[in-house]
Amino acid sequence: MSVETRALPLIEQLERDRQRVNRWLEALFTHRRPPAPRLEQAMQYGVLGGGKRLRPVLVYAAGRVLGANDDELDAPAAAVELIHAYSLVHDDLPAMDDDDLRRGLPTVHKAFDEASGILAGDALQTLAFEALARLKHPRLAAMMTTLASAAGRDGMAAGQALDLEAVGRSLDADALAAMHRYKTGALIRAAVRLGALVAVEVQDPRLAALDDYAAAIGLAFQIQDDILDVIGDTQVLGKISGADAARDKPTYPALLGLEAARTKADGLLQDALAALVPLGESAAPLTNLARYMIERDH
Amino acid sequence: MSVETRALPLIEQLERDRQRVNRWLEALFTHRRPPAPRLEQAMQYGVLGGGKRLRPVLVYAAGRVLGANDDELDAPAAAVELIHAYSLVHDDLPAMDDDDLRRGLPTVHKAFDEASGILAGDALQTLAFEALARLKHPRLAAMMTTLASAAGRDGMAAGQALDLEAVGRSLDADALAAMHRYKTGALIRAAVRLGALVAVEVQDPRLAALDDYAAAIGLAFQIQDDILDVIGDTQVLGKISGADAARDKPTYPALLGLEAARTKADGLLQDALAALVPLGESAAPLTNLARYMIERDH
Repeated sequence: MSVETRALPLIEQLERDRQRVNRWLEALFTHRRPPAPRLEQAMQYGVLGGGKRLRPVLVYAAGRVLGANDDELDAPAAAVELIHAYSLVHDDLPAMDDDDLRRGLPTVHKAFDEASGILAGDALQTLAFEALARLKHPRLAAMMTTLASAAGRDGMAAGQALDLEAVGRSLDADALAAMHRYKTGALIRAAVRLGALVAVEVQDPRLAALDDYAAAIGLAFQIQDDILDVIGDTQVLGKISGADAARDKPTYPALLGLEAARTKADGLLQDALAALVPLGESAAPLTNLARYMIERDH
Repeated sequence: MSVETRALPLIEQLERDRQRVNRWLEALFTHRRPPAPRLEQAMQYGVLGGGKRLRPVLVYAAGRVLGANDDELDAPAAAVELIHAYSLVHDDLPAMDDDDLRRGLPTVHKAFDEASGILAGDALQTLAFEALARLKHPRLAAMMTTLASAAGRDGMAAGQALDLEAVGRSLDADALAAMHRYKTGALIRAAVRLGALVAVEVQDPRLAALDDYAAAIGLAFQIQDDILDVIGDTQVLGKISGADAARDKPTYPALLGLEAARTKADGLLQDALAALVPLGESAAPLTNLARYMIERDH
């Protein structure tokens, strides 16, 4: 068994995958003479400043479970992280969430300026599609459609719009779930689907099983985020905890209470694990990843 | 000879192509139940509010000259216009050019709000790549790379960053040309290349000839825009003329004088026509289009 395919303990594998996608992302910015150096710096600042790299980790894990090579997973892993990074840069803007800190550091528009924040986000989104197009793959069109659908008006951008409209209003748990399904769920599902599409045809029934898995962990992850926002410590999170409540944003703990929110996250974790049953033993890394994502404390 | 391929007079062909891409763009917004209706409205407002559709017209013209079918040109034509539309929505934002009017109507962030302007621009960019991915074509990866390179940090976004940095500074004519090469030239070249790639392989030497043509008309078009900004009438242009000077933006007429700017645009037009010589008689529509773009009065 080669080093590449030997099953590693989860934490070790996560760390390897993070480093792997970080190297790939860094390489997008090296050996270049960019036409607009300050824009390039703002882009680098926006994407290379740390982060869990959860979406790339999901691309790698889902792809490997279906037999994809790591080398073919790098471009989709980087692409999905670039979309995530662009969305954070824009979400932090004064006209959006107006955040000054991200991962304990000034946000892009604070470290640079507002125009640079807008442009860096724009160019990070473009770079996501450019990175994905580097993958010479017979299912590139399906992958492009997957990424674009998840990022745009039927996915993340719609979720952000619904989120902004919800500030100061009362949402019920269903409306909150719908908002999260778009805002964070769509891109998490896209990560899993992109990894899987590297390995299997669009018609493969395992895609549907993996999508059920991804939909469940996506919402559970968001509920856990809300819970951590209430109980977490600012130093551990690297952002100001209780920020959602201060902004009067609807959250699961606020709507359901903390215990019921935990119960809901646990139920979704069970849904995710059930969805993996048809994939058998080979899906163990995805099982472990789901537990890790939902039982995390930061 | 079929109706599709019969050579029409230029103005009639332009009008047909505008209507054709407008129908395609409108269809992106019909028969849908969008998750975030207000975002969708802001996107529609940003892309369906008129405009010359110059870039789609170039996609169609370049593609037809090399023998492409109209049906295969719709997706790239729409994609390049969606990139253009997103860039206008973001350029108009308060942190960027801070414009209240576009084509005689309130800009997106004035008609909606600033967050909607940011999100609508974001989602229009995403939609460009989604639209292009609808084209099932063996050279889709090359087309994606063409569009993304032209839109991002090596193209339009870089040009916008350089433009913002240039406000209040003195640029010489070379630095101004470099800025325009990125800000508007890159996407005009991409339009021509996308149309051509529908018909011919990446290695086809006619791509290089068409790229020389596109580079020349791209800069000439921008010089003509600067000239019109000085001499034009606010009502005809649908924006406030003299706006560049009021904002202390460098322009060709300001740097070279009006007559020398005209001479420069004419010289570039000649360069563009010379680049088409290897394509022979079949390139006549591109010749006519170049003259139209550079001799226009609005």
